[in-house]
Amino acid sequence: MLELEVLSREECDRHLRDSAVARVAVCTPDGPHVVPVNYALVDDAVVVRTVAASVLGTHAPGNVVCLEVDDISPVLHAGWSVLVRGRAEALTPDALDAPLRTWVPRESDVVLRLRLAECEVSGRLLPAGAGRRS
Amino acid sequence: MLELEVLSREECDRHLRDSAVARVAVCTPDGPHVVPVNYALVDDAVVVRTVAASVLGTHAPGNVVCLEVDDISPVLHAGWSVLVRGRAEALTPDALDAPLRTWVPRESDVVLRLRLAECEVSGRLLPAGAGRRS
Repeated sequence: MLELEVLSREECDRHLRDSAVARVAVCTPDGPHVVPVNYALVDDAVVVRTVAASVLGTHAPGNVVCLEVDDISPVLHAGWSVLVRGRAEALTPDALDAPLRTWVPRESDVVLRLRLAECEVSGRLLPAGAGRRS
Repeated sequence: MLELEVLSREECDRHLRDSAVARVAVCTPDGPHVVPVNYALVDDAVVVRTVAASVLGTHAPGNVVCLEVDDISPVLHAGWSVLVRGRAEALTPDALDAPLRTWVPRESDVVLRLRLAECEVSGRLLPAGAGRRS
C-alpha cells in the first residue's frame, strides 16, 4: 500500500521557489489562525508582507509560525505540501532590496521574515495512484 | 482600489460543500502546526479523519483549531478562502454514518468534528483584477 512520501530538502526548496501563495498559521490567545498570503524567497528567507494591525502583524513577530505551501489535485487525489516552521522576524518594508509581489492591493507596513537556515523545513508527497476512496 | 471582499455565510457554506481538501492548524507547546487534510461536511459539521498519535490527533481534540479551505489562482492572482474556527470534538470512526473519503491510504482511528453552528465561519474573496504587482 502506498503512503505519504517524505520530500528531500532540495525538493522542498524547489517547491518554495516555484510557488507564490502560502498559508501562515499563528497561535493567538484564542487559538490558531490561518491567513493566506503571497510570499517570496529572498536571500534564503521566506518573506511575507502584512499589516501591523492584522492577525499576522499582531501575533507573528518574534513568535514561531508555520507557513504551508501545497499543490493538491482534486482530480488526481495527489499532491505535495511543504511546511516551514520557525520564528518570524518583523522588518520594515524598506529593509528588503527585492520587490515583494502581493496580489492584494493593500498598503503593507511590516515584512515578516523566516530564515530557512533557522527553520524546520519538511515536505510530503502523496503520489498519484496512492489515493483511494474508503 | 479593489480590496478583499467578505464572503456571505451562504458563499462560505457553498465553498465548504464543494471542496474536499483543507488545512487544519493547531497550537502546540512549540508553536503552530498546519496539516493538509481531506474533509467532508456531515450533518452541518466538518469532519476530518486522523490518527490518534499524529500532530492533529494529539493537539486537536478538545481544543480550538482553524480549518482553512481556499482556491487561489496563480494565473489570475485571484481566489477565495474560507476559515472555520472552533473547538474540535474527537469521535471514534464508527460514530459517523456517512463514509469519509481520504486520499491518503492510512488507517484512521480518530474523527475530528467541528460543528459549524458552534464555530466562527468567515470567508474572503480576492476578485480577478484586484491583484497588482508592487
